[in-house]
Amino acid sequence: MENINIRFGRRIKELRLMQNVSQEELGFRCQLSKNYVSDVERGRRNVSLKAVEKFALGLKVPVYYLFVWHDEEETVHL
Amino acid sequence: MENINIRFGRRIKELRLMQNVSQEELGFRCQLSKNYVSDVERGRRNVSLKAVEKFALGLKVPVYYLFVWHDEEETVHL
Repeated sequence: MENINIRFGRRIKELRLMQNVSQEELGFRCQLSKNYVSDVERGRRNVSLKAVEKFALGLKVPVYYLFVWHDEEETVHL
Repeated sequence: MENINIRFGRRIKELRLMQNVSQEELGFRCQLSKNYVSDVERGRRNVSLKAVEKFALGLKVPVYYLFVWHDEEETVHL
């Protein structure tokens, strides 16, 4: 299984691009620096839950949605 | 909205009790100390993604499942 920080970063980038938002704009929305956003997207940070929440708010999605990775989508039965 | 560490901790405790597992046993499964598990359940730690992943593995659930909180369940449409 791939590193969780890599998978999380890829998902953030995916959602950001779906919303047609720059790293700078997302950083502004999340109150995080552009460099931090860039590092996270590259899987270079071991992100804390406080930062996870900022990304969810900035991307306007529920927190769990940041952890829905394509290889797991079919297993979702709540 | 409640603090993300509080909500996460409550969810960990809920899943642990559903599996009828002690904090000590969960700590063993996750390679985390009993005290750390206890702190997390009380919302006293700003948990990193690496630790989140350990909880998911120890509880044998997908990562996103740790972030499915009851107030959001009805919004799940993947």
